[in-house]
Amino acid sequence: MAAKAKVTFLPSGRTIEVASGTTLYKAAVEAGVELNSVCGGKGKCGKCRVQVHGNYELDHIHPLTPEELETGSFLACATRVRGEVRVFIPDTSTAGKGQILTTCKASCRRPDPPLRKINLTIPPPTLNDNLADLERLMRGLGPRGLGEPQMDLGLLQELATTVRKRDWRTTASFIRCGQSSRLVRLEPGDTTGLNYGLAIDIGTTTVVVQLLNLVSGKVVRTAAAYNRQISCGEDVISRIDYSVEGGLGTLRRLVLETINMLVDDVCIEVPAQQVTSACVAGNTIMIHLFLGLDPSNIKIEPYIPVANNPPPLPARVVGLKLHPEAPVMLIPGRSGYVGGDITADVIASGMHKRKELALLIDVGTNGEVVLGNDQWLVGCSCSAGPAFEGGEVRFGMRAAEGAIERASVSNNLWLNFCTIGGAKARGICGSGLIDLISGLFVKGALDKAGRFRGVLPQRIRPGTEGKEFVVAPGLETASGKPIVITESDIRNVIRTKAALYAAASVLVNSLGQKMEDVQKVHICGGFGNYLDMNKAISIGLLPDLPRKRFNFMGNGALAGAAQCLLSRRSAAEASQVAARMTYMELSVNAAFMSEFTSALFLPHTDEKLFPSVHPLVRSG
Amino acid sequence: MAAKAKVTFLPSGRTIEVASGTTLYKAAVEAGVELNSVCGGKGKCGKCRVQVHGNYELDHIHPLTPEELETGSFLACATRVRGEVRVFIPDTSTAGKGQILTTCKASCRRPDPPLRKINLTIPPPTLNDNLADLERLMRGLGPRGLGEPQMDLGLLQELATTVRKRDWRTTASFIRCGQSSRLVRLEPGDTTGLNYGLAIDIGTTTVVVQLLNLVSGKVVRTAAAYNRQISCGEDVISRIDYSVEGGLGTLRRLVLETINMLVDDVCIEVPAQQVTSACVAGNTIMIHLFLGLDPSNIKIEPYIPVANNPPPLPARVVGLKLHPEAPVMLIPGRSGYVGGDITADVIASGMHKRKELALLIDVGTNGEVVLGNDQWLVGCSCSAGPAFEGGEVRFGMRAAEGAIERASVSNNLWLNFCTIGGAKARGICGSGLIDLISGLFVKGALDKAGRFRGVLPQRIRPGTEGKEFVVAPGLETASGKPIVITESDIRNVIRTKAALYAAASVLVNSLGQKMEDVQKVHICGGFGNYLDMNKAISIGLLPDLPRKRFNFMGNGALAGAAQCLLSRRSAAEASQVAARMTYMELSVNAAFMSEFTSALFLPHTDEKLFPSVHPLVRSG
Repeated sequence: MAAKAKVTFLPSGRTIEVASGTTLYKAAVEAGVELNSVCGGKGKCGKCRVQVHGNYELDHIHPLTPEELETGSFLACATRVRGEVRVFIPDTSTAGKGQILTTCKASCRRPDPPLRKINLTIPPPTLNDNLADLERLMRGLGPRGLGEPQMDLGLLQELATTVRKRDWRTTASFIRCGQSSRLVRLEPGDTTGLNYGLAIDIGTTTVVVQLLNLVSGKVVRTAAAYNRQISCGEDVISRIDYSVEGGLGTLRRLVLETINMLVDDVCIEVPAQQVTSACVAGNTIMIHLFLGLDPSNIKIEPYIPVANNPPPLPARVVGLKLHPEAPVMLIPGRSGYVGGDITADVIASGMHKRKELALLIDVGTNGEVVLGNDQWLVGCSCSAGPAFEGGEVRFGMRAAEGAIERASVSNNLWLNFCTIGGAKARGICGSGLIDLISGLFVKGALDKAGRFRGVLPQRIRPGTEGKEFVVAPGLETASGKPIVITESDIRNVIRTKAALYAAASVLVNSLGQKMEDVQKVHICGGFGNYLDMNKAISIGLLPDLPRKRFNFMGNGALAGAAQCLLSRRSAAEASQVAARMTYMELSVNAAFMSEFTSALFLPHTDEKLFPSVHPLVRSG
Repeated sequence: MAAKAKVTFLPSGRTIEVASGTTLYKAAVEAGVELNSVCGGKGKCGKCRVQVHGNYELDHIHPLTPEELETGSFLACATRVRGEVRVFIPDTSTAGKGQILTTCKASCRRPDPPLRKINLTIPPPTLNDNLADLERLMRGLGPRGLGEPQMDLGLLQELATTVRKRDWRTTASFIRCGQSSRLVRLEPGDTTGLNYGLAIDIGTTTVVVQLLNLVSGKVVRTAAAYNRQISCGEDVISRIDYSVEGGLGTLRRLVLETINMLVDDVCIEVPAQQVTSACVAGNTIMIHLFLGLDPSNIKIEPYIPVANNPPPLPARVVGLKLHPEAPVMLIPGRSGYVGGDITADVIASGMHKRKELALLIDVGTNGEVVLGNDQWLVGCSCSAGPAFEGGEVRFGMRAAEGAIERASVSNNLWLNFCTIGGAKARGICGSGLIDLISGLFVKGALDKAGRFRGVLPQRIRPGTEGKEFVVAPGLETASGKPIVITESDIRNVIRTKAALYAAASVLVNSLGQKMEDVQKVHICGGFGNYLDMNKAISIGLLPDLPRKRFNFMGNGALAGAAQCLLSRRSAAEASQVAARMTYMELSVNAAFMSEFTSALFLPHTDEKLFPSVHPLVRSG
């Protein structure tokens, strides 16, 4: 057996004992310490830099350059514990306090939740009316449709006491499960005024929970946090890899920890034990990890999940700290890469109920696009890449404190920017990147292919990865070193926006429509909300349509989950949407490859598709 | 806190530490040591005699006489631990190795069990046919009617591996639950040839389990044991009392221990984990204790159970050591005192499907009577009293080794008897009592009221409780002391038989029928099988009908449970039988009191009802 060694993480001071030879990255995951990683500890992303003191050893193949190593900061995933060590995690290596999108519009005028509460006054038994307690309760519920309900043994064991506590006045909470129903809870007296549910949006990056009053239809509290799984990899593919390597249990634990912590945050006036239903929207991989289902087949062709429509399960089985019998409903998905979060977006948008042709784009850690109306729906997913969330961009970061979120480029290429929280700049987030690239392109500093044009020595300079543009000089940054954007960064952003645009084009074309036939464009997802519409159109991320057709929905997944908690009808519609949506697999689609290639320009090869953009662009 | 003291029980040698002041009876229950008790430790029945050495204290009000106490044997329920003690439990204070009725006739030519196994070969997924594993499985099952099935999370977590293990050949085990269905198990390959179920008869006194091959319909093994709850009281009322005094958990544990021990006995060729369904028949109180439901309201007017028809529950929830997801079905009962065991009797008798009027009598620790045909059913229960199982009779005992089970009385009142196992006589069991009383009555030694007539000094002598008849002289008994039957014993037997006969009469009369209209009499229950029909009629226990109308069914509850495991149709019929049976409450029925009074004679006040008996009786 390997010797054990103590690792202390700073600034938190958290300690853990691990076997000698464990990487600092694994120790941090084990200890629940927040540490950035895009690749999941594979030495690829360079995001998990830490400073180490004590008895440690660097891997022979350490991804950092000798110069970088001289600064005394190493990658946690390529540094191994040999004895007692103290590890300092700098601010730049944690997710930080970010802006997580929690705004959403769940519309429900008259709540009619799947978790129904019915108050009954049951006639007490007599010798002539001697039905047993359970059958008496069922008779009282009558045609409200329970049939032979299922229930937990615990409820049955308390039944006799509960119905007698308030003189045969009792409130039954129940829910339909398929063709049958389940008695969730039984309370003495009339508690129909108290019905609380939890909407949960499990994103790859962020998790949002919203406590709803299912009687008034109002939001009680909302809370958000980064998904603690981030330390095991930032995108769904690295999470699958981590799971395949034996980490499924850890991933499940981490997301449950994240949600249960948020439950504590929202359950203040309302105790968590009073929350008797929950509805979860998440992409298919997140739902797999949440339930402990093996996601490995989603990564390999033909990309098959264990379940797109898992049955509802009690909170105690799932591992949520709500009322133990609270049914946890999962919004059904369509495929491995078009999950329940997209179904929830559709529900929140209402596009499945309207005649007009609508396009829905969800830009999160992945990109998904849905096209359709009340007659048909077609959806697809594109690996948009993490460029808008800070991945594959040298100074990319999430929308957290110190991120450049807004930038405007003047005619002489001077730059004004503002950071989140007004702090010194630490990096550039998605909306900042779009502003920057749009500005540089419109002002003529970038050509259609995203290459820098001409040389302006004070701003554009040669770098290690081709030319780079100095966004913020050292004076204005937290580290004291300049923040730049490189041609390589710009190529990655262009690839991301091209994938999204191409996905939308393929859907529109394959159904014999034209982009201008789209009457409504719904933009969902964490990133969409901070987008400058005109700038996003100018780089070809969004189609060049009349601006009033765009609808920024905010967190559509959360809104859809909330709506399904509030309305049985919406919950039923979610199943129908998932079932009737046609899924288009783009990874093997020739038209997509061709559309993608055409979109790898600013804004697009075909200038006619972006008539409003060209008049603005200053030719170089 | 009270000091602890060690108690050693002999001959088993089992030890336990209990608080000083605990009665030896409670210590024995706690230790799981077998010890007779009819009253449940209340000092009333005198069955828990033990010999004690060490530091103990007798209760001031000890039920034994000073002479009895001088023999050095005390009642365990009135003797308290003060320090270390050794307790010897004589043979006469344990249930002993008895004859438990396990014979039954479950008829099922072509099994069609509720637990269905279906073998599927599912087409492997492709890019064009990319349903998720679960939905693919459901499509494969097609219209065999699963809809949106429920399942345990564990099954879902194994699903991807299971379906791929044998190249998408898999066997699904599922069961209908109300209007919905439940996926119980999924196995790789074709295992439809292996489908095992467990029929369980939980009697107040005995528990029988039967392992069935649900493919062939054949019995694999049967095992029986005394219900370990006996040590907490022998009849259902003393069990309810024990439960009300905080013993519900203990009672539940004891019956689960009994069943799980029997599972070990029958699961030899077939591992218990391969048993994927179970069906339980038991009286309503036994079912309550089995599930841990509070039975207290069954004892008080209007005698209301928690549930007559509890939903099926997985074995892991119930606490049975079968496949954890095996559904445990409970045969529905009609009321607190006409339980699922009687429904099972009816199913096994087939009386609910035939036009002829039939009477069903179940004589166990309680007595239940059902009258009816394919149009209607009416049932009732009478507290027949434990006389036939050894209670309320001085030398009464269960049908165990040494029990006088057969006796014939000669004209000069000489007696021939035989004991179970041919051992020296230890007491008299139910069938022996009937033989004795019938013989004494027919030979003129007893009058119609059950009083001894005349004095034959060698056999009939005065005793402490009036006259008594020496059944076995000391030379022929295990204790060396004579075994007698007293007038008080005979009165108790007459009360028991009168209650049963009166119950049958009330049912017949209340429906405007006459006893001779009854075309079939089904006798079920542990005791019925050893009954001498003519002798039972001669004392007025059974109606005086043509002998070919009697059908001794054996253990009808077990047979009915087995039939419901083997046939979905029988299981559905069981629900219908319980639902359509009219329950007649005799405790407040004036006609019953009048019938009971008339039946308190040998064979009955109304001699016309027993035409075949009177010619046989020698007048005194």
